[in-house]
Amino acid sequence: MRISELVERTGVPLATLKFYLREGMLMPGAALTATRSEYGEEHVRRVALIRALSDVAGLPLQRVKTVLGLIDSPAGSLFESLGSAVAALPPYADDVADGEQEPTAPEYPRAHAAITALGQVYDPRFAAVAQLERALAAVETAGIPMTADRLDVYGAHVRAMAEFDLARMPEGGREEQLGYAVLGTALYEPVIAALRRLAHQDIAARQLSEGPA
Amino acid sequence: MRISELVERTGVPLATLKFYLREGMLMPGAALTATRSEYGEEHVRRVALIRALSDVAGLPLQRVKTVLGLIDSPAGSLFESLGSAVAALPPYADDVADGEQEPTAPEYPRAHAAITALGQVYDPRFAAVAQLERALAAVETAGIPMTADRLDVYGAHVRAMAEFDLARMPEGGREEQLGYAVLGTALYEPVIAALRRLAHQDIAARQLSEGPA
Repeated sequence: MRISELVERTGVPLATLKFYLREGMLMPGAALTATRSEYGEEHVRRVALIRALSDVAGLPLQRVKTVLGLIDSPAGSLFESLGSAVAALPPYADDVADGEQEPTAPEYPRAHAAITALGQVYDPRFAAVAQLERALAAVETAGIPMTADRLDVYGAHVRAMAEFDLARMPEGGREEQLGYAVLGTALYEPVIAALRRLAHQDIAARQLSEGPA
Repeated sequence: MRISELVERTGVPLATLKFYLREGMLMPGAALTATRSEYGEEHVRRVALIRALSDVAGLPLQRVKTVLGLIDSPAGSLFESLGSAVAALPPYADDVADGEQEPTAPEYPRAHAAITALGQVYDPRFAAVAQLERALAAVETAGIPMTADRLDVYGAHVRAMAEFDLARMPEGGREEQLGYAVLGTALYEPVIAALRRLAHQDIAARQLSEGPA
């Protein structure tokens, strides 16, 4: 298809598609003449992925490029690429670092204790470790610290959801798999948060024997 | 205790405590003389709650006041107050409204379908309903829509976590209960998100038969 048809198919303006091409985010089409190129379904899929990462998941441009780079220039194993791709999501390490820790000796004692208790491998290089440390420090400061029994319950149920997610990882290529991992991680977090609030409300309504007004 | 001791006990500067008093967020102490008042443990607890809501949970001042108002001037049932208090948390309805919906006929078709499928009561006035609609629209746009089997799995596990949360609701007064509900909702969402990312990583490492480098 010509680029005008790619505009129609994706709903993305020509100027934006040209920007993606210039930035190397969208692979060039097959050159037909000096000024015309032919685009295919892989271009439609790529534009959809870029829009989902930027507009729907809200990633900044540089982070979108990071994910696309992991798709286009695979270095290391799929496992490593998955980790790097998900690390492109907020909260970013820069947001987390706030001078509380020695830059030379980052330690995440709360996250370490929790991850070990769950029987998982502790690796401080995983972006989510710093994120967990920060979140556990916050609940502690607020006076509702993580307890062993809460960790047991949360850990088991979160793991069951995560197993479902992995079981549904698409069989297809690297682009589908990394896209699924990043978008599924980012976009299902708000779904889970909303479901939790609604479950609280539903259970409270039943337990307090008072329906909503 | 004198206000200087309240400063020491809470670690909050005198000017800030005076601001809380002026704004009605901190209840006045018992007047000893025209210029001196006596403060007690309830003041220490209140200051800790204000700091947790504002500094740790990141609520804007007006939202902190909303929660405190629900504690100090209870109107309606505890169930209603819990709903109103949790509705003080982001994402706010203003953030969600983006002109996609008719303001006179708000409808949340995706949230309605999901909540009904879970056997819960659908009430569009719950703030989390709009939040769920928005989150479900995003996963749909990104090409990984909620499916019946994913909703079954997520719904069951999220509900189990929510039941644990409610079972640990403090027995004490309204201040403890509303504080627990708001802070537990807000601050455990990032904990759950981080645990989910770590579970993904742990499961992927095992399934892909490749440990981290």
